[in-house]
Amino acid sequence: MTRFRYFVTASVDGYIADEHDSLDWMTAFDDYHVGFQDPAAAFLGEVGSLVMGADAYLRQTVHMNRSGSPWPYEGTPCWVFTHRELTAEQGIDVRFIRGDVGQWVGDIAADAGDRDVWVFGGGGLAGQLADAGHLDELILFTIPVLLGGGRPLASLRAPLGLTPTSTRDFSRGVRETRYDLSKPLAPRRVEY
Amino acid sequence: MTRFRYFVTASVDGYIADEHDSLDWMTAFDDYHVGFQDPAAAFLGEVGSLVMGADAYLRQTVHMNRSGSPWPYEGTPCWVFTHRELTAEQGIDVRFIRGDVGQWVGDIAADAGDRDVWVFGGGGLAGQLADAGHLDELILFTIPVLLGGGRPLASLRAPLGLTPTSTRDFSRGVRETRYDLSKPLAPRRVEY
Repeated sequence: MTRFRYFVTASVDGYIADEHDSLDWMTAFDDYHVGFQDPAAAFLGEVGSLVMGADAYLRQTVHMNRSGSPWPYEGTPCWVFTHRELTAEQGIDVRFIRGDVGQWVGDIAADAGDRDVWVFGGGGLAGQLADAGHLDELILFTIPVLLGGGRPLASLRAPLGLTPTSTRDFSRGVRETRYDLSKPLAPRRVEY
Repeated sequence: MTRFRYFVTASVDGYIADEHDSLDWMTAFDDYHVGFQDPAAAFLGEVGSLVMGADAYLRQTVHMNRSGSPWPYEGTPCWVFTHRELTAEQGIDVRFIRGDVGQWVGDIAADAGDRDVWVFGGGGLAGQLADAGHLDELILFTIPVLLGGGRPLASLRAPLGLTPTSTRDFSRGVRETRYDLSKPLAPRRVEY
């Protein structure tokens, strides 16, 4: 059963990009997995497709172009929700889509075959998937930085309870925590 | 040397109260320390004074009055930054102050004697102290909930690097992580 898994890096205060939409604050932590298997490369082996929002796609391609590195997800189809007319960067197998996430999850899952879907971000898309009950897991890499403001991890209509399943400590104070969303910790939805 | 220590509970996505300024979403986790020494009670033994913002004070007294529990910090002087005319709840040793945090840190530290200062929140006050170089430690209790929006952990003018020093897992998926702000992880301030 294909799962939608949100694999993402955030600051201690829960921001995935700073308020200028930049990822530069993460650069000092790029070597966090030296001595470990690269978690992103390992995770990429478990997924058959990626889905992301337009801002996340643009952040990633800008970051890629600035650092001179190639698109790291070559060969894995990438679905990008956007209302803008975007152009596929060379070498990126990308489909630009729009509309309600619920209309697309079936195709995106089918595209993943017997593997999972990497929910890449941003927080808007992750929140829409979670609100619609289509987000199965959060794999969160916490960078030991207080950003003090920026793009939130997940924008939700209603709070969600999570079940922590595992944790790993990497170099540079970076910690991975995995949370299951499909086995709700009561109450799944916090009541007001 | 008296330290300013921000001991606080937040959601996985870094919110200390929901967008209605409520703490009700935490109530399901009130028993997180069953089988452990109560971390807040233990920490209270290490502090000689508390400092908080007006919103945090009001949140706490509202929560106290709604749950019928007494003020948990009796006997420890409490400094509250506010521009509003607030009234001290009965049994609370409180001083209402205003102005730049830098003008008050000396008195608040002196009031703590040979103990530390509990920076209680909210994120505005914690951020002002951090921006001014007066925040020494973050003791963060992470509740396994995605709130999806609310009051941020710390509002900062500039990002800050943290050094993780220890972690403890409690019941109900609650994790404590301590971060040192006084021994900066290079770069202390993330450059743009």
